[in-house]
Amino acid sequence: MSYEKLPLQPFFDKIDELKPAFVERLRKAIAIPSVSGDESLRPKVVEMAHFLVDELTDLGFHDIQLKELGVQPPPVENKDLKLPPIVLGRYGNDKNKKTVLVYGHYDVQPALKEDGWSTDPFTMYHDTTKDILYGRGSTDDKGPVLGWLNVIQAHNELKWELPVNLVVCFEGMEESGSLGLDELIAAEAKNYFNGVDTVCISDNYWLGTTKPVLTYGLRGCNYYQVSIKGPGADLHSGIFGGIIAEPMTDLVKVLAQLVDGNGRILIPGIDDMVAPLTEKEDKLYDDIDFSVEELNAAAGSDTALHQDKKAILKHRWRYPSLSVHGIEGAFSGGGAKTVIPSKVIGKFSIRTVPNIESAKLDKLVIDYVNAKFAELGSPNSIKAELIHDGAYWVSNPFNEAFTAAAKATEDVWNIKPDFTREGGSIPITLSFEQLLGTDVLLLPMGRGDDGAHSINEKLNMSNYINGCKTLGGYLHYYGKA
Amino acid sequence: MSYEKLPLQPFFDKIDELKPAFVERLRKAIAIPSVSGDESLRPKVVEMAHFLVDELTDLGFHDIQLKELGVQPPPVENKDLKLPPIVLGRYGNDKNKKTVLVYGHYDVQPALKEDGWSTDPFTMYHDTTKDILYGRGSTDDKGPVLGWLNVIQAHNELKWELPVNLVVCFEGMEESGSLGLDELIAAEAKNYFNGVDTVCISDNYWLGTTKPVLTYGLRGCNYYQVSIKGPGADLHSGIFGGIIAEPMTDLVKVLAQLVDGNGRILIPGIDDMVAPLTEKEDKLYDDIDFSVEELNAAAGSDTALHQDKKAILKHRWRYPSLSVHGIEGAFSGGGAKTVIPSKVIGKFSIRTVPNIESAKLDKLVIDYVNAKFAELGSPNSIKAELIHDGAYWVSNPFNEAFTAAAKATEDVWNIKPDFTREGGSIPITLSFEQLLGTDVLLLPMGRGDDGAHSINEKLNMSNYINGCKTLGGYLHYYGKA
Repeated sequence: MSYEKLPLQPFFDKIDELKPAFVERLRKAIAIPSVSGDESLRPKVVEMAHFLVDELTDLGFHDIQLKELGVQPPPVENKDLKLPPIVLGRYGNDKNKKTVLVYGHYDVQPALKEDGWSTDPFTMYHDTTKDILYGRGSTDDKGPVLGWLNVIQAHNELKWELPVNLVVCFEGMEESGSLGLDELIAAEAKNYFNGVDTVCISDNYWLGTTKPVLTYGLRGCNYYQVSIKGPGADLHSGIFGGIIAEPMTDLVKVLAQLVDGNGRILIPGIDDMVAPLTEKEDKLYDDIDFSVEELNAAAGSDTALHQDKKAILKHRWRYPSLSVHGIEGAFSGGGAKTVIPSKVIGKFSIRTVPNIESAKLDKLVIDYVNAKFAELGSPNSIKAELIHDGAYWVSNPFNEAFTAAAKATEDVWNIKPDFTREGGSIPITLSFEQLLGTDVLLLPMGRGDDGAHSINEKLNMSNYINGCKTLGGYLHYYGKA
Repeated sequence: MSYEKLPLQPFFDKIDELKPAFVERLRKAIAIPSVSGDESLRPKVVEMAHFLVDELTDLGFHDIQLKELGVQPPPVENKDLKLPPIVLGRYGNDKNKKTVLVYGHYDVQPALKEDGWSTDPFTMYHDTTKDILYGRGSTDDKGPVLGWLNVIQAHNELKWELPVNLVVCFEGMEESGSLGLDELIAAEAKNYFNGVDTVCISDNYWLGTTKPVLTYGLRGCNYYQVSIKGPGADLHSGIFGGIIAEPMTDLVKVLAQLVDGNGRILIPGIDDMVAPLTEKEDKLYDDIDFSVEELNAAAGSDTALHQDKKAILKHRWRYPSLSVHGIEGAFSGGGAKTVIPSKVIGKFSIRTVPNIESAKLDKLVIDYVNAKFAELGSPNSIKAELIHDGAYWVSNPFNEAFTAAAKATEDVWNIKPDFTREGGSIPITLSFEQLLGTDVLLLPMGRGDDGAHSINEKLNMSNYINGCKTLGGYLHYYGKA
């Protein structure tokens, strides 16, 4: 990409200069164990919201609001438990500038030293040899959230004007289903979020460990269950084995016919809906920094279905896949139990991609499952149904936001970013796109090996600092576009 | 059967006369919640042992011992928890008489009113309209245990000599794995149990609700697990779906090939080991009181694999069966979880019958499972193994003990008993047979609908009273044989 560079060096230098302050800000944030999934830590989640409010206030944000979301719906132990508030704030309100909404979350995954952490998860540890910052939330998502604040601090100290109006939306329930967020976005679309031109989310990761990426696509997910019911209650296999049609026998025969050992979905008609691979798209995969070795390292095994980089990425990003997740109602404990389960519920899901039509997919799946069950001639009864779906998302990687982010990335990292998709879903992406009617850019700060939901979560110092530069650079290029 | 009747009418009349005392004895026993599976109720289990000791003492038993079994092995909450003692006692010690060991258990299954009981489970309720005694332990196994005591009381009041030496062995952990019992039998085989000629166990049930039975066979059970391992940890199906070989996909394909929809085991070589059905044995099934309607009622569904009475009974008693019980390591909860389980363990068992050789069966099963997995060409790894086995048991229904019990049954009920087997296992049967080197007779007191492990457990008054007569009559016919 050849482009006119903006004179951002003073900003980049200021970020470098402020590094000690930014590290200290992250240290303070990590020290607050804002685990949304642990009811007993809910006060800490709320404390983290107030920490952000104080920071935003100090930095000169205005119209700062803590949006209360009411009581957390069941299942909860404490039925009066309040959801953590969503933190909103503005920086700048110039009608002549574009408005960028940035989303992040201030809650974190659970973490205990006993889980196997090398250091206390809520005491930031700076490994100065490798220059890595360890701690729960370092990369997911406190580092990126503070990144936006760091950008503002650098501008303040430079006395630079921000090239856009910035709106921040930080939630505290992302690790626990983002309860209440969709409703808030819908309610504020024409209010607090009125005039937003684009949304930037920094809450995913590079594909690998060395090359920055911009993410323009996500697969969707249609999740199904197949319930097979026989006897009126669980039976003893000694007394009833051999004389009763067993639901578990039927279910494994149905589940066995969904996908073959190479990952090919056996349900006819699905492949026909997948958008054909064009030569242009195929070429996009050529330069992406990835290898089967990286896949094996991430999976912790040598059990990849494809050995070619491009095949792996296509099957992760642009082809559907089917996974069998488990069975409800059968014996699932350790050891031995001689039960004939009376009702078993198989769970599987299909990752969806353009141009799979969700409703048509559901019909193909349910008809196929029913047909395979009918072939068994079983006296048991079956019910196959969709239990939830989430649409795939693909953006235009050549739109203004992506182009701006690509320029900023190249300025900072001296390399063009890879344009990637992800195999999973980030439902909030679609929520913003659909409820605000704007484009969304996924601009990750951390690396693929940061261990977001794992032990020893980390953020490399270079990712934190260069990430801040990239976020700020993106605002400048986007403001100029 | 034509046989010389013994003059037992005075004994039967005495049992009838003592009915109020026997009902009171059962009421007292039911009132002690001797739930062996509930650690907090362990003192009540011990109290029940002492209740029996007091009763045995009053009835004139001698050499009464409480055999302590030490501390209960893990898993337990209280690591100092003592196992309940085994109660031993003798009545008579005449070298010229045969010695009968009777086994029973004084512990019971858990029971809570909230489980759905119509009345408090530990307060005996006598439904005088139907003449049924309700309460936890009524049929399993306090009624039968007290039956032996009732027989002695009747003899005492008649001033009749008991025709055999009686040894009682009552345990308090039967509902929790009979911990310590095998070791005690082995230790006492040449001591307390020296000279025992036969063993009688009254701890199973009639096949149906109207006709008494004697039980001469039990199926065995070989329990297997198939572990399939892929990635190093559970993975996200969004990120890894379609690019990794999934252990769950492999496992359902293997489990689907174990048994067909008609209950036929698909593993070659097993059928060849099953003892051929002789014409004589086939005829044994003709008169047995059973119907497919009874099976459907018991299963709570209309999903029987066979519609013919004889086919049902043969498949329950004398043919092997294979049940798939469940999967460990996969998602087993309600709702949706988008996991690719890294290691899944399928559990299935085969009910064994004469003349299946256990070791040969294991080899056939494990080789077959490995071969079916190999056909998949999966990069995942497999381990198929036996996790426990218990042998089948078949006795000679025409031996002295069965013949004596059959005569007593006919005296009491005016009908020849059905000679039945059971599809399940009662491991203690084999323990006594093998460790003492004697025959074992299974002589049930209760009916097939007593709800032994269920809510509203009951014992019909006629079964309790006629059961006492039958137990006593059996001792007389066996003593004379």
